[in-house]
Amino acid sequence: MKAVVLEKIGGVENLIFKDVPNPTPNENEVVVKIFASALNHRDVWIRLGKYMGIKVPIILGSDGAGVVYEVGKNVDKNLIGKEVLIDPASNWGDDEKVQSENYKILGLPDDGTNAELVKVSAKNIFPKPNYLNFEEAAALALCATTAYRAVKTRANIKSNENILITGIGGGVAIAALQIAVATNANVFVTSSSENKIQKVKSLGAIGGALYTNEKWKEELFNLTNKKGFDVVIDGAGGKMFDDAIEILKPSGRYVIYGATLGVAKEIQVRRIFWKQISIFGTTMGSPKEFVEAINFFEKNKIKPVIDSVYDLSQTQLAHKKMEEGLQFGKIVLKVG
Amino acid sequence: MKAVVLEKIGGVENLIFKDVPNPTPNENEVVVKIFASALNHRDVWIRLGKYMGIKVPIILGSDGAGVVYEVGKNVDKNLIGKEVLIDPASNWGDDEKVQSENYKILGLPDDGTNAELVKVSAKNIFPKPNYLNFEEAAALALCATTAYRAVKTRANIKSNENILITGIGGGVAIAALQIAVATNANVFVTSSSENKIQKVKSLGAIGGALYTNEKWKEELFNLTNKKGFDVVIDGAGGKMFDDAIEILKPSGRYVIYGATLGVAKEIQVRRIFWKQISIFGTTMGSPKEFVEAINFFEKNKIKPVIDSVYDLSQTQLAHKKMEEGLQFGKIVLKVG
Repeated sequence: MKAVVLEKIGGVENLIFKDVPNPTPNENEVVVKIFASALNHRDVWIRLGKYMGIKVPIILGSDGAGVVYEVGKNVDKNLIGKEVLIDPASNWGDDEKVQSENYKILGLPDDGTNAELVKVSAKNIFPKPNYLNFEEAAALALCATTAYRAVKTRANIKSNENILITGIGGGVAIAALQIAVATNANVFVTSSSENKIQKVKSLGAIGGALYTNEKWKEELFNLTNKKGFDVVIDGAGGKMFDDAIEILKPSGRYVIYGATLGVAKEIQVRRIFWKQISIFGTTMGSPKEFVEAINFFEKNKIKPVIDSVYDLSQTQLAHKKMEEGLQFGKIVLKVG
Repeated sequence: MKAVVLEKIGGVENLIFKDVPNPTPNENEVVVKIFASALNHRDVWIRLGKYMGIKVPIILGSDGAGVVYEVGKNVDKNLIGKEVLIDPASNWGDDEKVQSENYKILGLPDDGTNAELVKVSAKNIFPKPNYLNFEEAAALALCATTAYRAVKTRANIKSNENILITGIGGGVAIAALQIAVATNANVFVTSSSENKIQKVKSLGAIGGALYTNEKWKEELFNLTNKKGFDVVIDGAGGKMFDDAIEILKPSGRYVIYGATLGVAKEIQVRRIFWKQISIFGTTMGSPKEFVEAINFFEKNKIKPVIDSVYDLSQTQLAHKKMEEGLQFGKIVLKVG
């Protein structure tokens, strides 16, 4: 089969499109013929060596949709040919509150979806929702689950609440926006791009502010008619940590799913307790949340936002695009 | 009546024991003859000018117990002579999640309990629990409510969970310890005093570590049989913020009710989301929590720990003791 193999840590030139042996399914496993695969920041970070437990060579890619191609022992043969979406996560464990130590995501340590064929546990395939094509289905999996846990399980947002989603453009942020809009919350964003702020309005958000603007907090506050925010959904951390607590209403909730800005400095602790703030760390989601997320998107007929589609052979370009951070929505690889 | 009047911001020499006019109750108010009053850190911070909205002269003191001495219009005259405990908080508002902007605590801006007589709303008096004498009852109010909200409402601790209570010795920390022990949690502490760590064992805690010891986190971890903590209850903030997140188990809860160590300087955000940590700011408690706290203490026959009792005329000495931070339990003023 054709696949994109990360041969060593570093630049995009290390992502080699080449022939590799087909995977063969073991007991309780299936091989899926991938029609579309979607990129996540995780893929870029792994390539750059910023993850623990990296081994090369590896086929990256967590998200994928396609048809069942081959089944292993103990798996129903009637699955062959069925259109499926892959849940990229395994071994969450028994505790809904937190993943187990054995938790893993497709694409490291196991070979992932940037390939014509991928081997996964039969537990990890789900019927592709009919209202989505393969590219849209692939764009949904990891980001939708992560956003669902952040917005629903952790923040537990309610209709009419004011929600700020920071750094709009990435897959999780946009999925969070879509979930919040479908919950009838009042959704606001921050971005470094005026163009992206305009785009969110077509998705049902009210508006946003450029965080590059010195007075962005004041602008956002005015957008909420000086009410402030009930919830901030943030993947940045760093300076945003204290800013989020500042712009929250009393008893507001700050949900943090990433730390692109790194370590948080100078947190006004007094503000956290005086305002009775709650802060929720969250990452990925359980198998239950994966199913709930897909069902939520299907029920509300929400289509994931796709920024661009590359051919699998153009994976280097797709990685460059993601690294530049200019995308609005998912970057998808078309396979086969 | 005799009272201790803070005449200006500064040292304990500004707390003047003197004669002042008796308060007179307005409509829906009562005057309570105080038999015992208890100190809180708040009193010291107000004296030192570290609170907003300070005005002098003022009679400090939030906690008090005594008998009803006089009632205003619309208040049942049969209350006169009844033994009561004062809820020092007013105007919490309708939202259990957070206090309103009009929230206030006895002793600023209204004259407080460091006096022979104090005027409060009739809504703020409760029957003194029979199992407590006046000094014990006075020691319960503000700290017990704050600790109850932190441990029960916010952390929602369960039996058999491992709970760390930092900086043991102060009133809130000890009340939190007592509530956690009565909930059958496994309770551990930090302190700067080996003597205090020994004392907590008699209250039902398992043990603790000196935070002045370089390896305190390792020592605590070993005390939990290398399991770590489900909950940290902290009034320090500062460096403790990141330390708490480090020593929590995955999905652990960090409850913060104070910031004696000030601003938190370096928070590893990645650890917050990867471990799915929840952080809850909390301060004081609602009227509902005041009642629940008093009922919880009564039902479990828990007596507040009293460090020392001073005569009202010795309030300067009592403030000195609290400022030194060497106390274990409440510092009480005996009145009349």
